[in-house]
Amino acid sequence: MPARRLDGAAAAAAFRAELTPRVAAFRAAHGRAPALDIVLAGDDPASHVYVRNKERAGVETGLAVRVHRLPADTPADEILALVTRLNADDGCDGILVQSPLPPGVSKAESQVIFDAIAPAKDVDGFSASNVGRLVQGRAALAPCTPTGVIALLDREQIPIAGRSAVVIGRSEIVGKPMALLLLARDATVTICHSKTPDLPAVASRADLLVAAIGRAGFVTPAFVKPGAVVIDVGINRVNGKLVGDVHPDVAAVAGALTPVPGGVGPLTIAMLLRNTLIAAEARAGE
Amino acid sequence: MPARRLDGAAAAAAFRAELTPRVAAFRAAHGRAPALDIVLAGDDPASHVYVRNKERAGVETGLAVRVHRLPADTPADEILALVTRLNADDGCDGILVQSPLPPGVSKAESQVIFDAIAPAKDVDGFSASNVGRLVQGRAALAPCTPTGVIALLDREQIPIAGRSAVVIGRSEIVGKPMALLLLARDATVTICHSKTPDLPAVASRADLLVAAIGRAGFVTPAFVKPGAVVIDVGINRVNGKLVGDVHPDVAAVAGALTPVPGGVGPLTIAMLLRNTLIAAEARAGE
Repeated sequence: MPARRLDGAAAAAAFRAELTPRVAAFRAAHGRAPALDIVLAGDDPASHVYVRNKERAGVETGLAVRVHRLPADTPADEILALVTRLNADDGCDGILVQSPLPPGVSKAESQVIFDAIAPAKDVDGFSASNVGRLVQGRAALAPCTPTGVIALLDREQIPIAGRSAVVIGRSEIVGKPMALLLLARDATVTICHSKTPDLPAVASRADLLVAAIGRAGFVTPAFVKPGAVVIDVGINRVNGKLVGDVHPDVAAVAGALTPVPGGVGPLTIAMLLRNTLIAAEARAGE
Repeated sequence: MPARRLDGAAAAAAFRAELTPRVAAFRAAHGRAPALDIVLAGDDPASHVYVRNKERAGVETGLAVRVHRLPADTPADEILALVTRLNADDGCDGILVQSPLPPGVSKAESQVIFDAIAPAKDVDGFSASNVGRLVQGRAALAPCTPTGVIALLDREQIPIAGRSAVVIGRSEIVGKPMALLLLARDATVTICHSKTPDLPAVASRADLLVAAIGRAGFVTPAFVKPGAVVIDVGINRVNGKLVGDVHPDVAAVAGALTPVPGGVGPLTIAMLLRNTLIAAEARAGE
């Protein structure tokens, strides 16, 4: 029996539909829409696609979305000045600086820019204080991708508490916050990575397997316990086609599986919009 | 063959001895010792013992330690005012508010007090921004107990990278930061807790097992793979005697084991002193 398909696109549409009346209520109460400012520097084609998708979904949900497009040679201090301006702008509720910044911006400069985003407007949930609050179980704005995964599991009535969860990948954007959110929901959580010996043996203990490595088709059936729930966070471009970290053959082994595209990607965007609304409501004292 | 005894007291003495010349150099350069301020409210007997040990070790290492003893009925806003004063005090490098605060201080008030500690003086490493920086692999001031465990493993030349580590317990003070530090050192890390089914089966996969549950003798030989390294973070008082989370019978199974007392406890204090020096040096721009 092939794995049940966990339709992230449908779930994301439902989550966005839940936001729409709250956005309308905010607009009625405050005379303006919750506002998301996206800073897009450079011309990375994938980033332009992501930002367009975020912008479109935001507008459809009733948010005001402003995209600040900057040329690839924009100096770091100019990007920083823009962030500082947005921090002070009372009409801005959420700030998203699209990663990666152009090659001309060093890693250290990138860090300064991301650190400059006011925690109250940090809708990506990447700032040190928001990450710390996530660890402490009191996140206000949590990272969008792992939050979206939890929301999907809940919607699909897939239990988390007491289950064995394995997260492959330890990035700050997905792997680590995913592990922390699963832990907060009482899963027993294992984080593995490129230095883990015998990854398939570790992964195949999971009731719930999250693949966030960024390598196309890396997770083969040998990684998957029969019947396990498999969440594919990977977005890899292979010959112009988007493919996940999970090999297609896994569909014959897993009990449930998110597709790529149409799985985690749309959920990430829905959670970004939700974070923007949460930030707007919090700033308005609601 | 009984487990090798990992002598935390000896390691802590060695770490403190390494600090002494750095403390002396700071004093020579700045005309004052690095200064640790400890806020001790109420009359919890264990807290008084801990604070006395911290004070003694600090003074022996050349730090200036001021203990602010407050009665158990001190209102939360008075404790908060003290923290605010210490934040502004240029002669204070590190602030430690001994937990728990008295019963008259609510959980929410406690959180406000701990959140008020300036991150640059947060020598316990518990503030949201320091915790977030720990997740991001750029901690300035990391929690003392897990940092002490890593320092002990290094001193004992026990490898971490590529090993299977299991942490039992998910507190913010030990379990979670311990898991993050082990992960940063390339272990494959599993965090388990009271909701984990069949804990002994999960724990006994570990090459490196950290017990931080706070239940006397909870970890029996059934939890331990023969030859595993077992770190006992528990400090439990049973009939007036200090005992760990690890049952004495584990000594017959483990390859190496920290005792209680004389294991992790002294390391925690040594790392607190180190954090105070680090904070002082950072504040002095070194």
